[in-house]
Amino acid sequence: MPDITVTSRPDAEALDRDDPLRAKRDAFDIPGGVVYLDGNSLGPLPKVAREALHHAIETEWRTDLIKSWNTADWINLPTRTGDRIASLIGAPAGSVICADSVSVNLFKLAASLVTRGAGLVAVEHGDFPTDGYILEGLARLSGAGFSLIEPGAGVAGLPEPGGVLVRSAVHYKTAEIVDIKAEEAEAARLGATIIWDLSHAVGLVDTKLEECGARYAVGCGYKYLNGGPGAPGFVYVHPSVAGDLAQPLSGWMGHASPFAFTDGYRPADGIKRFAAGTPPILSMTALHASLGLYEGLDLSALETKARALGDLFLSRVAPLKLDCVSPGIGARRAGHVSVRHEDGYAIVQALIARGIIGDFRAPDLMRFGFSPLVLSYAEVFDAADALVDVVESGAFKTPEFTRRGAVT
Amino acid sequence: MPDITVTSRPDAEALDRDDPLRAKRDAFDIPGGVVYLDGNSLGPLPKVAREALHHAIETEWRTDLIKSWNTADWINLPTRTGDRIASLIGAPAGSVICADSVSVNLFKLAASLVTRGAGLVAVEHGDFPTDGYILEGLARLSGAGFSLIEPGAGVAGLPEPGGVLVRSAVHYKTAEIVDIKAEEAEAARLGATIIWDLSHAVGLVDTKLEECGARYAVGCGYKYLNGGPGAPGFVYVHPSVAGDLAQPLSGWMGHASPFAFTDGYRPADGIKRFAAGTPPILSMTALHASLGLYEGLDLSALETKARALGDLFLSRVAPLKLDCVSPGIGARRAGHVSVRHEDGYAIVQALIARGIIGDFRAPDLMRFGFSPLVLSYAEVFDAADALVDVVESGAFKTPEFTRRGAVT
Repeated sequence: MPDITVTSRPDAEALDRDDPLRAKRDAFDIPGGVVYLDGNSLGPLPKVAREALHHAIETEWRTDLIKSWNTADWINLPTRTGDRIASLIGAPAGSVICADSVSVNLFKLAASLVTRGAGLVAVEHGDFPTDGYILEGLARLSGAGFSLIEPGAGVAGLPEPGGVLVRSAVHYKTAEIVDIKAEEAEAARLGATIIWDLSHAVGLVDTKLEECGARYAVGCGYKYLNGGPGAPGFVYVHPSVAGDLAQPLSGWMGHASPFAFTDGYRPADGIKRFAAGTPPILSMTALHASLGLYEGLDLSALETKARALGDLFLSRVAPLKLDCVSPGIGARRAGHVSVRHEDGYAIVQALIARGIIGDFRAPDLMRFGFSPLVLSYAEVFDAADALVDVVESGAFKTPEFTRRGAVT
Repeated sequence: MPDITVTSRPDAEALDRDDPLRAKRDAFDIPGGVVYLDGNSLGPLPKVAREALHHAIETEWRTDLIKSWNTADWINLPTRTGDRIASLIGAPAGSVICADSVSVNLFKLAASLVTRGAGLVAVEHGDFPTDGYILEGLARLSGAGFSLIEPGAGVAGLPEPGGVLVRSAVHYKTAEIVDIKAEEAEAARLGATIIWDLSHAVGLVDTKLEECGARYAVGCGYKYLNGGPGAPGFVYVHPSVAGDLAQPLSGWMGHASPFAFTDGYRPADGIKRFAAGTPPILSMTALHASLGLYEGLDLSALETKARALGDLFLSRVAPLKLDCVSPGIGARRAGHVSVRHEDGYAIVQALIARGIIGDFRAPDLMRFGFSPLVLSYAEVFDAADALVDVVESGAFKTPEFTRRGAVT
């Protein structure tokens, strides 16, 4: 962990010189004058993604046309992409498939567990809302029970044994990191099952899923993985249990012989049965390419740097005495920090006008993300000083910044 | 309907000169030397799709980053794309949303009807397999019954009143066109419900859904709509019933206030509730742009030309006396013709080697598609003559063509 007692910009620049991830910054094409603190929401454009998209458009779609299912191996793009993700989350090769969205993947996985006998699906109050929405929909269709449980309770908060808890490994607001190994041990004791939502963890936290005993997870491709807007999500199921699961979105791409065109569904082996329809090849191509940026990286360096950047940011904005809802300086924290301010919306807009892009979550939460592949210590130093200046000067108090847009 | 008694290439060229869709050919970038008879499986690259993708990569993703949810209106891309599709299928504006895959959309729609009380879901034996696979999965999860009914029976073949039949408006093998109005009248008489699968109809057959009384449909973006490989699908629900439906893939993008981040799902109004997770923006952008090619077209001209091309093809290959499983010359038929030959696989490969791209469906079916925006009469004339030459010369009988690949 770098020393975070940074008191001057040269101190920050010194940290950049020693940063083992420093070379990755050049792999992205980020507009000049922008400090991008929203990689936790939409990762910026990797140059390899642009190249891969260009190739997919010109060579695969335009020139090779339908043959590309073979010649460009589109047919295996979901598992090839899944294998790259597997290596980031501590999952065995062949246990992850890229498909659909996080929401749809969560439905598949939770529904499989309900079909196998789970009588209850649950999520913590205040966890990412779509996870709960999807479980509500599943419960209504299947007859399973649905519970919203106490925040932070984990599997111990399930109202009955044998239930399924969907839990974010990193909380979308606070960036708190759950101890996956401890939770899985508790789940084993209780006979409960956990589906991990890795949306804010993958590409940042070295989750070591298999080592921790985690058997089920879903996650997102467009945040730290830099897969592009609305990049497809993924599903992980440990190979020891994948063969037992029947997922209800049993489309032809998850069939054992999709091109036999026979009546009667026979699931493909292992994780492939979690495919449903034809995948969005262009969007998945960008994600597949972007994942190449992680090859050969020391995974622990990602969390270490993100936390150091967050610590630097918090130490520089300390004079503002903001209410920080994330773990503070020195505590374990994932890739973003969230601080409250009653004028948070206008402050975020005023920062955006200066090229410093964070986001706002109603009613009063400012989120700043520290994607470790993208950002330098010097940029974060500058961003923090800009926040202090905007707040102390009152520069945010103009109609230009206080007027609300549709989405922030 | 053009005169199809074409006996020479100049006759075909004359038809091209009179073709009202002729100018559309230049809207596509198709490699020189290729006659593409597989637009029914993957439409070729429209130049506007390339431009839109370039803009989405460089301006929206790279430059505007997260702001593009507002500035590029990504947030409404699913309904903007849906509205373009609505105008092609005879659906009111605001009744179609672009989302997910056909398989996933079919699940949403059929599950909604089961939740509303339908006790049985059914599909015809031999209809596109994924439709049946999805209904099987839904039946297992929900407890609804599932039936495979007699081919061609339609709603009259349902084993009980009040059931839901999923039916392709155009059959993927034969290109037969179902009389939607007559089927809907029969469904109304029986108290049954039909979900139309428009995958092989949209962009080709003027289905006039609302006029025909059709209330539910799904369809595909990567065939005649030319949306690119694995382009997202769509869902249509007539506005008179959309508010009654609760679909179980109730992700945040279908919530009434997705950015309020509240616990508890409240569906958005109308068709928007059929969104689930975050959509694949790049893939959807290509589809949205490609749909622009249909603006201002006389929809009846599409089916008319496709059928005329098919008739021309069949008349030229008549000397081969192939078994045609599609409606023959002069009969109503959608965009492709399927003919049997025991060496069909090798014949299709030999044609591909000559730049004439069709596809093969085991065990013995050769499919040739006639996308009316893409093809000229002269190209189809040449393709038919090449098929005659390949078969009569036996040029397909070499290991290069008889050896099977993984996907065809």
